[in-house]
Amino acid sequence: MIDTQELIEALHYIKKFRNQVFIIKFSGEILLDENVLESIATDLVLLHDVGIRPVVMHGAGTLISSNMEKMGLEPRFIRGERVTDERTLDVVVGCLHRVNNKIIDKINHNTAIASDTATAVGLTGGLFKAKRKRKELGYVGDVVDVNSKLIYDLIGCGYIPVILPVGIDEEGNLLNINADIATGELAKALDVTKIILLTNVGGVLGRDGRLIGRLTVSETRDLIKNKVATKGMIPKLESSVNAISEGVERIHIVRAGKHAILGELLTEEGTGTMITK
Amino acid sequence: MIDTQELIEALHYIKKFRNQVFIIKFSGEILLDENVLESIATDLVLLHDVGIRPVVMHGAGTLISSNMEKMGLEPRFIRGERVTDERTLDVVVGCLHRVNNKIIDKINHNTAIASDTATAVGLTGGLFKAKRKRKELGYVGDVVDVNSKLIYDLIGCGYIPVILPVGIDEEGNLLNINADIATGELAKALDVTKIILLTNVGGVLGRDGRLIGRLTVSETRDLIKNKVATKGMIPKLESSVNAISEGVERIHIVRAGKHAILGELLTEEGTGTMITK
Amino acid sequence: MIDTQELIEALHYIKKFRNQVFIIKFSGEILLDENVLESIATDLVLLHDVGIRPVVMHGAGTLISSNMEKMGLEPRFIRGERVTDERTLDVVVGCLHRVNNKIIDKINHNTAIASDTATAVGLTGGLFKAKRKRKELGYVGDVVDVNSKLIYDLIGCGYIPVILPVGIDEEGNLLNINADIATGELAKALDVTKIILLTNVGGVLGRDGRLIGRLTVSETRDLIKNKVATKGMIPKLESSVNAISEGVERIHIVRAGKHAILGELLTEEGTGTMITK
Amino acid sequence: MIDTQELIEALHYIKKFRNQVFIIKFSGEILLDENVLESIATDLVLLHDVGIRPVVMHGAGTLISSNMEKMGLEPRFIRGERVTDERTLDVVVGCLHRVNNKIIDKINHNTAIASDTATAVGLTGGLFKAKRKRKELGYVGDVVDVNSKLIYDLIGCGYIPVILPVGIDEEGNLLNINADIATGELAKALDVTKIILLTNVGGVLGRDGRLIGRLTVSETRDLIKNKVATKGMIPKLESSVNAISEGVERIHIVRAGKHAILGELLTEEGTGTMITK
Amino acid sequence: MIDTQELIEALHYIKKFRNQVFIIKFSGEILLDENVLESIATDLVLLHDVGIRPVVMHGAGTLISSNMEKMGLEPRFIRGERVTDERTLDVVVGCLHRVNNKIIDKINHNTAIASDTATAVGLTGGLFKAKRKRKELGYVGDVVDVNSKLIYDLIGCGYIPVILPVGIDEEGNLLNINADIATGELAKALDVTKIILLTNVGGVLGRDGRLIGRLTVSETRDLIKNKVATKGMIPKLESSVNAISEGVERIHIVRAGKHAILGELLTEEGTGTMITK
Amino acid sequence: MIDTQELIEALHYIKKFRNQVFIIKFSGEILLDENVLESIATDLVLLHDVGIRPVVMHGAGTLISSNMEKMGLEPRFIRGERVTDERTLDVVVGCLHRVNNKIIDKINHNTAIASDTATAVGLTGGLFKAKRKRKELGYVGDVVDVNSKLIYDLIGCGYIPVILPVGIDEEGNLLNINADIATGELAKALDVTKIILLTNVGGVLGRDGRLIGRLTVSETRDLIKNKVATKGMIPKLESSVNAISEGVERIHIVRAGKHAILGELLTEEGTGTMITK
Repeated sequence: MIDTQELIEALHYIKKFRNQVFIIKFSGEILLDENVLESIATDLVLLHDVGIRPVVMHGAGTLISSNMEKMGLEPRFIRGERVTDERTLDVVVGCLHRVNNKIIDKINHNTAIASDTATAVGLTGGLFKAKRKRKELGYVGDVVDVNSKLIYDLIGCGYIPVILPVGIDEEGNLLNINADIATGELAKALDVTKIILLTNVGGVLGRDGRLIGRLTVSETRDLIKNKVATKGMIPKLESSVNAISEGVERIHIVRAGKHAILGELLTEEGTGTMITK
Repeated sequence: MIDTQELIEALHYIKKFRNQVFIIKFSGEILLDENVLESIATDLVLLHDVGIRPVVMHGAGTLISSNMEKMGLEPRFIRGERVTDERTLDVVVGCLHRVNNKIIDKINHNTAIASDTATAVGLTGGLFKAKRKRKELGYVGDVVDVNSKLIYDLIGCGYIPVILPVGIDEEGNLLNINADIATGELAKALDVTKIILLTNVGGVLGRDGRLIGRLTVSETRDLIKNKVATKGMIPKLESSVNAISEGVERIHIVRAGKHAILGELLTEEGTGTMITK
Repeated sequence: MIDTQELIEALHYIKKFRNQVFIIKFSGEILLDENVLESIATDLVLLHDVGIRPVVMHGAGTLISSNMEKMGLEPRFIRGERVTDERTLDVVVGCLHRVNNKIIDKINHNTAIASDTATAVGLTGGLFKAKRKRKELGYVGDVVDVNSKLIYDLIGCGYIPVILPVGIDEEGNLLNINADIATGELAKALDVTKIILLTNVGGVLGRDGRLIGRLTVSETRDLIKNKVATKGMIPKLESSVNAISEGVERIHIVRAGKHAILGELLTEEGTGTMITK
Repeated sequence: MIDTQELIEALHYIKKFRNQVFIIKFSGEILLDENVLESIATDLVLLHDVGIRPVVMHGAGTLISSNMEKMGLEPRFIRGERVTDERTLDVVVGCLHRVNNKIIDKINHNTAIASDTATAVGLTGGLFKAKRKRKELGYVGDVVDVNSKLIYDLIGCGYIPVILPVGIDEEGNLLNINADIATGELAKALDVTKIILLTNVGGVLGRDGRLIGRLTVSETRDLIKNKVATKGMIPKLESSVNAISEGVERIHIVRAGKHAILGELLTEEGTGTMITK
Repeated sequence: MIDTQELIEALHYIKKFRNQVFIIKFSGEILLDENVLESIATDLVLLHDVGIRPVVMHGAGTLISSNMEKMGLEPRFIRGERVTDERTLDVVVGCLHRVNNKIIDKINHNTAIASDTATAVGLTGGLFKAKRKRKELGYVGDVVDVNSKLIYDLIGCGYIPVILPVGIDEEGNLLNINADIATGELAKALDVTKIILLTNVGGVLGRDGRLIGRLTVSETRDLIKNKVATKGMIPKLESSVNAISEGVERIHIVRAGKHAILGELLTEEGTGTMITK
Repeated sequence: MIDTQELIEALHYIKKFRNQVFIIKFSGEILLDENVLESIATDLVLLHDVGIRPVVMHGAGTLISSNMEKMGLEPRFIRGERVTDERTLDVVVGCLHRVNNKIIDKINHNTAIASDTATAVGLTGGLFKAKRKRKELGYVGDVVDVNSKLIYDLIGCGYIPVILPVGIDEEGNLLNINADIATGELAKALDVTKIILLTNVGGVLGRDGRLIGRLTVSETRDLIKNKVATKGMIPKLESSVNAISEGVERIHIVRAGKHAILGELLTEEGTGTMITK
């Protein structure tokens, strides 16, 4: 028989989160596991159908590197950010676009549940104004401004926005933006209080290689400074620190297992690492 | 860890039942157990808070008989219906009113959860037009008409109506109505598809004394005709047969344990007896 | 031919009072005269139909005492308030409920005029939070809080609320509230400027036994202090003093004759006693 | 003391006529008596303030003839209609305009009652499309079309339209329209069920010189054919016959005494002549 | 091929002026040229149809003088204002009414374009409260108050108001108001930023007889003081000075040629004289 | 001075096209000329600002071929459609995405006019469901379904959708769709009556090399069958034939000169080739 205590808990969260916007960030790696992706898409549709408003942000890291190699291009990174020359940019955008459509497709044609109201929609542009970062990174940018009205309009019409991290600068150049950083900026712009970063790691590991359950902002800064955090984790932690300093209350770094979002949002027990003020 | 399958199931039902009206009928007996009452009130508030619209109907059987005895009146029944003379009527109405306020109070001052939106409201009249049944029953009536607009107005304003089964006839006499029958009539008038009858028995027992899981209308008729059903169960079964013939799809006769409504509405596994067409 | 001056006057009042809420309090005694009750119900329907919003509060004094005696219980009063033990409470609630339904029935099935819009509705609970008065009174309470939203929701849906003076305390006990005091509290909570107290006396009598046309609050206090007012009149005067100190502008104590409300609201000439600041 | 029966009657009519449109037609003669005009303006404001929607139509007969004479023009009539050459037309329009403003002014600056909502508004044109009658009448027209939307827009914004009977033909010529005929056409276009024709006569007189209380359409036709009706009465009767054949239910020809409209609309007893089907 | 620059310019103005109210004042003289009148009516309909809200004010100068003479009355002016005795007033009102209907007719039955939404409507009264000017002018008034709500209600319902300059004083006298002055007062009351005065002159001429393109308020005052301006131009200039001091930004005095309004509102190049602060 | 006839014509079209949706299809080639692009973006903003609803569809032909070559991939076409293997698809999507952002950027940061309301938005997916064409074309698809609600939602929120021709099939594969064909399908789905195809050619050339002004559907079919039309023109003509057979009334194939859209939509004289039924 059902554990009613858990059900009551879930109902509390459903009520509490009704009409709230959350950002769910998908790391590129996790998109490779069809079962997990399908299961997470199911979560998004279910949450949407009971009145919660998810916004999806994603990267395409693994795919980009692999496709670059097929094209004879060598992936290079500086402090966790991809060096992006003009040819690389085409591959980056092409791969992000593919991944974006894959997520949209999983949500819109979910085989586990048939929703008549949840429709995912992807945006190519008009969302991030950006400016170039250090020259050596090439076409890589920082977010300068976010068109949050556009996202709220889409949410208001009942859509689940699925966003890829590409911006445009003053000269009209397309710029590759680190997905974790874009997530933080989007959260600030949308006045979102909770971000879920879905990874294939499932949390921040300490010096001893064990998962850290909770981190304050200052502890997180230490992890970055002391180079305990891995390369891929650095932008996640940096953007988390930044987002929290701008008003986001909680960031959950969670392993992308089956129904990971549902478990994270509708139950009390956390998994992975929660970063707070 | 949470059983996500159950959670997903619950989310499906929440979506399916959003804005639907259900009638929950409380037998008088079950109102004596404070813990169960508190737990069921919690269920009602939770369901209301995620968008489901419960309407409560109740009797006060046990309390009426006990208070009658205190007043020196002897309770009498004919075919499960209380013989109601003028003095008895005062006790009936007084007890129903008390029980009504007790339920309202449990909902409005629920200690388990604090809702800022769920408010129960009781109605003395203006709801049921009735006409007298057989003379020997005294002031006992059948429902002739239900002011369903009043219930929908209250639901539309966000209230949980808590209804006691008293009507008024053409001459202005107050009439005691069997709560199970009133439940069936209310269900028809509100165009409700599902009724939950909360009892202290928990379902219909067969000739062998074992719980019957499912009954069709014709099987139910047989149980009545063959006098397998107990006296208190007869009006429940009769009104169920009647309600289903008028369009109600499912009637669940359920034992009023802790969180019985939640379990019944949001999980697949039924408890007690389900009567269908 | 019609006295157009009076008609013009009436039109002025209809315009002035459009959409205003008035509380009409029925003393229990007056409910015994079917003709008067019918005529007053007609007034309420007419006022409602031209856009005025009456709220009815009532007691059931005479009926309660008489039914108590039938049950072998002896009515007792302290300073005009009924001593209410548990058994008495059942009779109180039963009688109030009956009276409530009688008023509703007179309004909803008025024989003098057929209204398609005026529907009376009675409320058992969810309206008054109360706390016990002096222990010696038993289950008798003072109003602590009024759910005015509920009344306004019902008025907004076009109903005429008919309210009986029963509240519930923190422990969930039903408490008998003096109807005049409940009237004053309701008036404050609804921000009503005018109360009409319909009695079988028709105003406050002075030391010389003659009707007093107007009273200020301080004169009223003197009447209470000097014990000029009769026992039944004391709660009326006390709640009037209280209500006026909380913002109610005018309280009219009026004899419940035929069309007494219409005459009082739509003509300049007052009858009975008007209490003002 | 007030005659409550009359008050109840008046309330019935107020409810019945709420939001209904009535056409009140002022004969030119009655506009000369300031007291009557003031009193009728009061009636209009009062009716408007309790939710009835009066539309005023007026002529200016007496004033036109008198001003024509001042200008050295001789008034001439054919079958009750004024022969209108170009110079006469200026006087007709000028006088109608003056009378129109006088009525508006009486309503808007009523000294008997101050309304904050009733505002009269006069219309010069855009209302009646007309075509010329017999050539010998000059610039005299029949109504071909009425812009009823314009009247309903003004009523919907809370105005009392005051209309003068001038139309325009296909060539753009201004045409003088008989006010009684214009009244009938307006009534048909607005789908009005009741017209009040205020005259200085106060009803139709029979062959014996006595007032006729009720007339059917066929009796009215006889009066016209047999030349019992006076010249000024003919267009009133003709337009009445016409209006009734087009769906207007009742036309009251009433003497324009003090508060004549109030008495006519809100009491049962009629004055003057009522013409029905 | 089209001059796209002009089209772009026009689109800019259409966007800028969307939902803005402009007053177009027609001098009486220009109403005599059917072709110009037709063309200007076309402009009004076109502007209305793309969302601009024109209000028309007009005089009837030439027609009044000519009709007065037909009636044997001699037109007299003091400082550009017509001396108006009682008989003159009838002619004034009659002529204004005719002109008003002519403009309405041109708009509503425009032969150049068929609009299904633009409907002109004329107002006789309820618009200007006035008080008498110097006694020697007779029934000539200054505007004391404007019922701007009436105009906005009509605009809100989609009408093009066509207004004639007649007011009413405290005693109920009709007063002739100079149309240019009424235009200025209307502009202030409606909070309009732009007035177009259509004349048969086409601008203010300087001492050398040449058109002055732009004038400030102080330059305009000098022209009046130094009697450079012609008699007919004086009220135009005075009301312009007044209107600008009350917040109107721009007044254009323009020759009433074909499509003069369209050219003035939707192109950059001005014609005639623009008066600004 | 302005040619008022043209202005009047433009106003007519603005009124006629208010709130109508048009599809403007940009050929990839024309996107290379910054001046033309800027000027067309200006047109879109202007049209949007006066209430017309443009939807932009675009290809990226020239850029794709050039970037493929940089990547060492050889562009190949079959009957005007690009053979698209997996690596080519990344370049196709990357280039379309770039072009999409370029158009959005030109609209949103238009230097010629500053609009506070026109915002372009690009969509990655959720728009076209597709299925594979002939296997030899690789990842090239036909449109099976269009999510027209998404486009209407965006238009309803005031956006200018800028759409790139990529769809997704049942298996979740991204498919390259010919932009002209996608335009036709979009037009049918949106129930659009007019399509403008902006090309660098400016119309269909006949056998004699001269521009053909008008074509019927059957004439167009002949041109295709007889191989008079050039390779790049074939999909344009085929999708035009298809779109017209589905209800699109007019397709304009127009040279993408400065302000080409404005000239095409708001003037009578056409440029290029118009294809009709």
